[in-house]
Amino acid sequence: MIDIEVLRRVSDTLVARKQADPDASYVSSLYAKGTDAICKKVAEEAAETIMAAKDQDRLHLVWEVTDLWFHSLVLLAHHGLSVEDVIAEFRRREGVSGIDEKKSRTAQVEVRG
Amino acid sequence: MIDIEVLRRVSDTLVARKQADPDASYVSSLYAKGTDAICKKVAEEAAETIMAAKDQDRLHLVWEVTDLWFHSLVLLAHHGLSVEDVIAEFRRREGVSGIDEKKSRTAQVEVRG
Amino acid sequence: MIDIEVLRRVSDTLVARKQADPDASYVSSLYAKGTDAICKKVAEEAAETIMAAKDQDRLHLVWEVTDLWFHSLVLLAHHGLSVEDVIAEFRRREGVSGIDEKKSRTAQVEVRG
Amino acid sequence: MIDIEVLRRVSDTLVARKQADPDASYVSSLYAKGTDAICKKVAEEAAETIMAAKDQDRLHLVWEVTDLWFHSLVLLAHHGLSVEDVIAEFRRREGVSGIDEKKSRTAQVEVRG
Repeated sequence: MIDIEVLRRVSDTLVARKQADPDASYVSSLYAKGTDAICKKVAEEAAETIMAAKDQDRLHLVWEVTDLWFHSLVLLAHHGLSVEDVIAEFRRREGVSGIDEKKSRTAQVEVRG
Repeated sequence: MIDIEVLRRVSDTLVARKQADPDASYVSSLYAKGTDAICKKVAEEAAETIMAAKDQDRLHLVWEVTDLWFHSLVLLAHHGLSVEDVIAEFRRREGVSGIDEKKSRTAQVEVRG
Repeated sequence: MIDIEVLRRVSDTLVARKQADPDASYVSSLYAKGTDAICKKVAEEAAETIMAAKDQDRLHLVWEVTDLWFHSLVLLAHHGLSVEDVIAEFRRREGVSGIDEKKSRTAQVEVRG
Repeated sequence: MIDIEVLRRVSDTLVARKQADPDASYVSSLYAKGTDAICKKVAEEAAETIMAAKDQDRLHLVWEVTDLWFHSLVLLAHHGLSVEDVIAEFRRREGVSGIDEKKSRTAQVEVRG
């Protein structure tokens, strides 16, 4: 079984790079450009994920989902969050069926206004 | 530390639900609708992730990234893939910096045409 | 030649509906839900445009681009803008080549910070 | 009143550029790269439209909607279509309310499978 802890290592590295020089790496240049630049990458990778799925190109699909998750982690780190927060949310939802989750979510959104 | 294996459990459940009755759950209804319906959800969740980031609403951001990852896992399962494939791709990239990864990717894309 | 003024009529109608009861029409319910709901529709229609293009389904592509433009007009109207503003921007760009436009835009973005 | 025919001129120019050398302009380079590259631009501009709306930056919003429409026209031209087809579809829908349109569309989608 493959070591799922890699997600934690990637997330930790992304958090650590927030202190780095903007020229030091691709990720530090993204942080320097700010939220819009990172969001644009999330949108791009989502579009590429969709196109890989439409092409039924499974290798490409895995690649693009990895890119999408990677840039989601950059966006989280930029906001002081990490993979732990996503994992915690997945844990909270565990045992709740998709449809029930949708319902509890709608209720919560109403509460949150 | 939170149990990251939850991602594997969610992914396994999503694969298992492929055999289920379309009326059985939110996810089985998505499978029944097919690739376009699942892709549309991925696009929607990416847009909601971006809007939560723009709002600087961290709680909402975690929620939307979880939704985005969840629907990515549905899309992977629909194509006979799972979180293992994404983890394996993250492992392959480990130790490769973002910028170098971009370069090796460009090279590969050229090869793949 | 088909009457291009239809775009103006649609845009005018969308502006007029801003005063309507939220239950009166699909568009007035969108206004009532607010910016995020309208933006989500723009994202959805962009994704459907991409999927129609990937399917090489020309009829569907025209349909989805129409939906995308329609919801762009709703978004503009929601912000007190109309098709006139888009037309004016197209006019401003006329005679400027795509690449030069990109350059002048980059310069402007830098100025705008 | 501003000359709405500019949309037709832009669309005609985009169709004409399909014969041009890929190095000749931004648009001819997009055609040369193909459907995926053009779709990626549509996704990007949709994301930027959403972000401008969230920022309540009206000038920027007009700009991004113009970019979104421009790249939609490139995508149409790439598939042998033009602004005429979108205008014709808007004409077809005229007089049909949003909600009714949604209903007639659902019916049609069912017919189309």
